[in-house]
Amino acid sequence: MRKFAYFLVAVVALTGAPMQMGHASGDADGEASPIYGIKVPLGYRDWRVVSVAHEAGKNNDLRVVLGNDIAIKAFREGKLPYPDGTIIVRLAWSYVPSAENDRVFGRSQSFVAGSPINVQFDVKDSRKYGSTGGWGFAQFKNGKPAGAAVQATCFPCHALVKANDFVFTHYSATP
Amino acid sequence: MRKFAYFLVAVVALTGAPMQMGHASGDADGEASPIYGIKVPLGYRDWRVVSVAHEAGKNNDLRVVLGNDIAIKAFREGKLPYPDGTIIVRLAWSYVPSAENDRVFGRSQSFVAGSPINVQFDVKDSRKYGSTGGWGFAQFKNGKPAGAAVQATCFPCHALVKANDFVFTHYSATP
Repeated sequence: MRKFAYFLVAVVALTGAPMQMGHASGDADGEASPIYGIKVPLGYRDWRVVSVAHEAGKNNDLRVVLGNDIAIKAFREGKLPYPDGTIIVRLAWSYVPSAENDRVFGRSQSFVAGSPINVQFDVKDSRKYGSTGGWGFAQFKNGKPAGAAVQATCFPCHALVKANDFVFTHYSATP
Repeated sequence: MRKFAYFLVAVVALTGAPMQMGHASGDADGEASPIYGIKVPLGYRDWRVVSVAHEAGKNNDLRVVLGNDIAIKAFREGKLPYPDGTIIVRLAWSYVPSAENDRVFGRSQSFVAGSPINVQFDVKDSRKYGSTGGWGFAQFKNGKPAGAAVQATCFPCHALVKANDFVFTHYSATP
């Protein structure tokens, strides 16, 4: 193990680049969700950005969609279907006005992320989830999965975008 | 170089973990911005999420705020001031309704990121930018910096949040 640490130090020294140690896609923790048996993947808060969105109505949230390395590669290549091992995660926060930011504009126009709402995962495993387009779905809050009634609502909606391999979110080009 | 590649393969094999090779904070490319002399940091599209927001009004955008490793560490620790080397980036896209997503809800409520608008960087260097709270500011579109008139508007607004070390965005807790 000490030798391994030297390896890492050597690599960092040689490249001059900081390295982020990711988690393998299979690493997960906590209670499994009903129906699809999905656990929260470790380190998802550190994954890279696919896009952002605002849902009004009953959702009333601001959300960011992130992907693991397999997902980001697939989004950037734009090829369908997404490969097995793809995990897409949607993090949502309440949609709240920011009086602090509004002072910049002298009017009410700034909306920011408030308290956390929940997190949803789409996991591609074409064999395990063959009856739902190759995707498993899960929703968690504070590491606790939603009940089966909630999880059962995922696929009927995702089926609306079958032509996009059941994925709603489109990758946002870099400004 | 081949030996170095073997090092990397060995490290990945030993850990079973994918590694993201980051860019050192100093690595940048292209034309420098006026006033603060900031170049676009390499790899910023891959940085980790601080938060998301929606600006209505003339901005009419959806935006995500990301940070380099130094920024993310500082945001998570919640200590002010941000250390030298902190870079915060705001990516903005046009705010557009999504008819595709609205089919889920049967009403108009879904707004997604449309075309890229621009990207803004806040760079902490307390010596270089001592006269503007330790921060340099820059805006780019397609790698091209905005003119001096635009860049000059940054600091007067950021001065409104001096108590937060001139940073508007608050870190969003993980759902």
